[in-house]
Amino acid sequence: MSRFAPLPDPPYYAVIFTAQRTGADAGYGAMADKMAGLAAQQPGYLGVETTRDEAGLGITVSYWADEAALKNWKQLSEHLLAQKLGRERWYDYYTLRVAKVERAYSGPEGR
Amino acid sequence: MSRFAPLPDPPYYAVIFTAQRTGADAGYGAMADKMAGLAAQQPGYLGVETTRDEAGLGITVSYWADEAALKNWKQLSEHLLAQKLGRERWYDYYTLRVAKVERAYSGPEGR
Repeated sequence: MSRFAPLPDPPYYAVIFTAQRTGADAGYGAMADKMAGLAAQQPGYLGVETTRDEAGLGITVSYWADEAALKNWKQLSEHLLAQKLGRERWYDYYTLRVAKVERAYSGPEGR
Repeated sequence: MSRFAPLPDPPYYAVIFTAQRTGADAGYGAMADKMAGLAAQQPGYLGVETTRDEAGLGITVSYWADEAALKNWKQLSEHLLAQKLGRERWYDYYTLRVAKVERAYSGPEGR
């Protein structure tokens, strides 16, 4: 399965979540898998890209059709629990940015 | 040094670059360092966040004050060379999205 999200015609939304993990797993892996599956079932979900290095710094960008889709996902009860545990257990620090994608490209062309 | 970019008041721009590396280094590490240093010297540069996993999937998000800053960085001659080598040598596939950051948060609060 590709680790790249599709490239629909803009505009759409990107949620850029950058996070430094704590050392403890404490259920993180299972929850991350569960949230990825749950997100993919939500209306307006367009895809996700995620990676994390050995030092525990991860960037996850999820893509959504519109503001309604963002709001629904943010407020979903299972996701609210995951957010709470993230704050309490899993992340030393994180930033979250909501951004409207205006244009997009892919490459390399012509290889 | 923090691996998180600052959080200025929106709006500003995010360039989301997701890329699968080829196996070959072929000067990649040195060029990546050079480009990071060069980007940081450009007008309108706000910061960068970058990470890559063991499988070679990387996400780099750079932040810029406005469209003029984006355009300047895209067209800078040394950066054009790096882009060319990226297409020819370093990336199996990549996507690049330009997005306008509308709001941003950080956490965890209250720890």
